[in-house]
Amino acid sequence: MSILIKNVFMDSVRKDILIRDGVISSIEDEISFETDRVLNGSGKAVVPSFVNAHTHSAMTLFRSYADDMHLNDWLENKIWPIEANLTEEDVYWGTRLACIEMIKSGTTHFNDMYWYYNGTARAVVDSGLYAHLSSAFIDLGDEATSNKQIAEQVDIFQQKEKYLPNITFTLGVHSLYTVSESGLLWARDFAKEHSLKIHMHLSETKKEVGEWIKSTGLRPVEYLASKNMLGPHLIAAHVNWVSDEEIQLLADHDVGVVHCPTSNMKLASGVFPFQRLKDAGLRIGLATDGAASNNNVDMLDEMKIAALLQKSFTGDPTKLSAEEVFYMGTEGSASLFDLNMGRIEVGKSADMLLVDLGNIHLIPNHHLIANLVYSAHSGCIDTTIARGKILMENGVVEGEEEVIEQFSQCVERLIKN
Amino acid sequence: MSILIKNVFMDSVRKDILIRDGVISSIEDEISFETDRVLNGSGKAVVPSFVNAHTHSAMTLFRSYADDMHLNDWLENKIWPIEANLTEEDVYWGTRLACIEMIKSGTTHFNDMYWYYNGTARAVVDSGLYAHLSSAFIDLGDEATSNKQIAEQVDIFQQKEKYLPNITFTLGVHSLYTVSESGLLWARDFAKEHSLKIHMHLSETKKEVGEWIKSTGLRPVEYLASKNMLGPHLIAAHVNWVSDEEIQLLADHDVGVVHCPTSNMKLASGVFPFQRLKDAGLRIGLATDGAASNNNVDMLDEMKIAALLQKSFTGDPTKLSAEEVFYMGTEGSASLFDLNMGRIEVGKSADMLLVDLGNIHLIPNHHLIANLVYSAHSGCIDTTIARGKILMENGVVEGEEEVIEQFSQCVERLIKN
Repeated sequence: MSILIKNVFMDSVRKDILIRDGVISSIEDEISFETDRVLNGSGKAVVPSFVNAHTHSAMTLFRSYADDMHLNDWLENKIWPIEANLTEEDVYWGTRLACIEMIKSGTTHFNDMYWYYNGTARAVVDSGLYAHLSSAFIDLGDEATSNKQIAEQVDIFQQKEKYLPNITFTLGVHSLYTVSESGLLWARDFAKEHSLKIHMHLSETKKEVGEWIKSTGLRPVEYLASKNMLGPHLIAAHVNWVSDEEIQLLADHDVGVVHCPTSNMKLASGVFPFQRLKDAGLRIGLATDGAASNNNVDMLDEMKIAALLQKSFTGDPTKLSAEEVFYMGTEGSASLFDLNMGRIEVGKSADMLLVDLGNIHLIPNHHLIANLVYSAHSGCIDTTIARGKILMENGVVEGEEEVIEQFSQCVERLIKN
Repeated sequence: MSILIKNVFMDSVRKDILIRDGVISSIEDEISFETDRVLNGSGKAVVPSFVNAHTHSAMTLFRSYADDMHLNDWLENKIWPIEANLTEEDVYWGTRLACIEMIKSGTTHFNDMYWYYNGTARAVVDSGLYAHLSSAFIDLGDEATSNKQIAEQVDIFQQKEKYLPNITFTLGVHSLYTVSESGLLWARDFAKEHSLKIHMHLSETKKEVGEWIKSTGLRPVEYLASKNMLGPHLIAAHVNWVSDEEIQLLADHDVGVVHCPTSNMKLASGVFPFQRLKDAGLRIGLATDGAASNNNVDMLDEMKIAALLQKSFTGDPTKLSAEEVFYMGTEGSASLFDLNMGRIEVGKSADMLLVDLGNIHLIPNHHLIANLVYSAHSGCIDTTIARGKILMENGVVEGEEEVIEQFSQCVERLIKN
């Protein structure tokens, strides 16, 4: 498919943009070229789409199901009991709903970890989005569970061609405290053998880190280093409670880290040490986490909250500027997954948004990026393009009504159980 | 005007609501009554509209004009120089734009302090909104300026009937550190004589409080108490840096306090001590502050950020729950201005919103208030009603295009100067 976008603002200058085979092939003052589609960019600006670097997308099923609770109470008494009744169909429709929400709020690639891998994968494919996808590996130290989970991971891995090109299989090691040492080592070796990324939660809460030190004598990152698990293939979400020595280890091994500000604030898990991680040269992405602890999957919200958190927490309003946080949600996140996206540039993947400069939240247009970070909501996004395919135009995503209908039936059944 | 809303969800039950002469006159399972308008409430829920308890609405003119800066640098090098060129027409159109944004995001009453009172007042009237309005009194200790400002306040006060019922004249004492002692005492006496509210910034930054203690030997609230300026008529915005003794003084005199979480976080001014103020029994409202330091005037955004800030700052995820922060943005704020609004109840003012339960951000509907606080954006609001008058229907506010056009011309002229 080829698309020609006419007369769109790019860094305050009107340009024509030509998209061919999913890639930005030309950006000029004027382009004449026969294409499948021509989009009128007048009154709109083009910006890169977002990469949501850590989420559990099907958890839209539990949006606002339980809030304002302590993490353990929330998990043990609310989330886990209802998750016990989940089916693959629930996960499919929960993910479909999340995908529509992501398309509307400008995300075209995300990194997911949840149950029922195939449910999620089918939903991503059917939505036209792209994802790094992992099935949660949790054995709680039980050998039989561990073997079963390993078999499942291998099985999914062997079928990974099925969902190409939308899905990149990733090993989902839930966390240090939920996976046995033998499970961790298996994941390390399997990832190395097959050049896979590993997606895990790391040092999210102070409690978890304290208990880990107590039981192993090592801080979590030191432990991972001792097991040769650190590397550029590791995507570590949260990373709130890390010592300077741990940050140096993460940097030495070029680990990718993901900031989830809303989830961390809502669950009072801790504050991401942005400046220390940045100063160490780490690749940093931005993410919403799941809708159950956010309660949406909207990267525009996430950028604002990330910037506010760093300023407030450090007492320095110059910290995490609009440009820095916009970078984090686009190129920063993309860098964790080796994606050729995050900039509007010839040769880059055609993952982009057309934003409506006539939306009141973007008026006046003193500074578009600051407006997007601090003022916009997802209604400002008119068009979402993923790998050169239009997923939303004039704010409309095809099939939304059907998805809401099916999703609502799943929720009704889950709540009844 | 009379309105009948049919079949709308209220606390998960379908009701009919009758509005007559700006007041909710009946709520029943079914109402048959001849009215000027009938609204179909199917698929919608009714909730009270918001009261934005502290803003400088015309500052939409400077939205995203200067961000990520230290407060003094921002004011002295960016905001004040451009404000020096403002005209009454700029303020009129800046406020008109803010009013449309507020109507779209569910605010029907706000508390404003800015320059060119008449510009703001005309804009509020023309928008159909309601406001407590004050002209900023700043004399920086200069007697001639002080006399001029007092004359201006008296002049505006004498014409206050002109803008009834939309505008309630309020005395705008900018802050302790920008107004002379004689100016403060004049305001105290004038407010007492005419039963006026006083709107001021109080203890926003640590620096300002430190300097005040250094120059007077008293903490700001102690100073106000020593001058007999505390009382239920005082609306104090920010109130971040207060000792326990000061909180007790505020409570003893039933002062109304206003939380501006986004502005405080963005400028790194400090953290509002919500729990301490609540425990002391204070009336607490919620506000966006001006768009130049937010960068919107959206109370939905503000509720989420307020809840996240308290949880993160205290390390306790149960703090400032969805219900508490929704209360703060509705009844809490309303209580500061003696408004008969903030609840959907017979006899209350008909200030309300119809939210679209079909919007993806409100799906599933496990808990509407949590969805509104944590997930919604202003696009979820379908209808806004202020004092029984429909200001938005189907997401459309009349006259938006004209306002944007005129506003944009003002901005262009301001930037050129």
